Amino acid sequence: FVWSKILVNVGSHFDPARSIFVAPRKGVYSFSYHVVKVYNRQTIQVSLVLNGWPVISAFAGDQDVTREAATNAGLVMMERGDKAYLKLERGNLMGGWKYSTFSGFLVFPL
Amino acid sequence: FVWSKILVNVGSHFDPARSIFVAPRKGVYSFSYHVVKVYNRQTIQVSLVLNGWPVISAFAGDQDVTREAATNAGLVMMERGDKAYLKLERGNLMGGWKYSTFSGFLVFPL
Amino acid sequence: FVWSKILVNVGSHFDPARSIFVAPRKGVYSFSYHVVKVYNRQTIQVSLVLNGWPVISAFAGDQDVTREAATNAGLVMMERGDKAYLKLERGNLMGGWKYSTFSGFLVFPL
Repeated sequence: FVWSKILVNVGSHFDPARSIFVAPRKGVYSFSYHVVKVYNRQTIQVSLVLNGWPVISAFAGDQDVTREAATNAGLVMMERGDKAYLKLERGNLMGGWKYSTFSGFLVFPL
Repeated sequence: FVWSKILVNVGSHFDPARSIFVAPRKGVYSFSYHVVKVYNRQTIQVSLVLNGWPVISAFAGDQDVTREAATNAGLVMMERGDKAYLKLERGNLMGGWKYSTFSGFLVFPL
Repeated sequence: FVWSKILVNVGSHFDPARSIFVAPRKGVYSFSYHVVKVYNRQTIQVSLVLNGWPVISAFAGDQDVTREAATNAGLVMMERGDKAYLKLERGNLMGGWKYSTFSGFLVFPL
């Protein structure tokens, strides 16, 4: 997916066209995401994917609420050039990614 | 609203009386909030507001649960003197802000 | 409880056997947690505990959904040797801690 609005992209290490964060150097990075599902009857599962491997997952599965977020956060160690992005593993987002956020930053270099 | 307890306020850049964070210098700041609604039948929407403009929103709308959090997080770029605060855009919090949190810190200066 | 997988433990200040983070130096630390409850009819309450005192709480109480997270985050000031960990204050996690995360890092030293 493509984010409709980039709030902060210092250093330009986030590629807006592909929605992939590429680590500019080796270090520990903090990522946080909140993916908002608009009312539908499906459960969604959203994972933070590091170089193709899911490392963290989040779920939203309530059928009664209008908007519900699948949210998680964590620290990951990345080598220079490693790629991090979100993947919708299950369900679909009929209303798009409105109100969803994905953010990451370098906590400290190694 | 006014927070009942300030866990950390290093540098005193958070004004407890007005519940507004004032950026001490230009940089990228990380904010995170979890606003807990106690059982009522309303949907709440809580936004992180930067200088009067909402930049991130979160929702809690389940009618069946006792406590539910509207939660989001993100990075924002701030100039010195910029103001960040939470705004309850929709619904009300009859039980007050108990268990709710709002935190922010400078990720790196610019 | 014991985490099944440690993604990042730079400096080895997290004790995997006891699931306690011990502050290596005085400073402000950021913690974030997402504890996922699998379908059961109980409400869970999970607190971030600092030296035996709960400082932040989160809830998950929906009876209709398969997976739901009790999530919160915040900044805490710690002295060298202070201990931070998660405590399940109410309910139980029949399916274990799968998909749950707990992360923390030093924002800045004091």
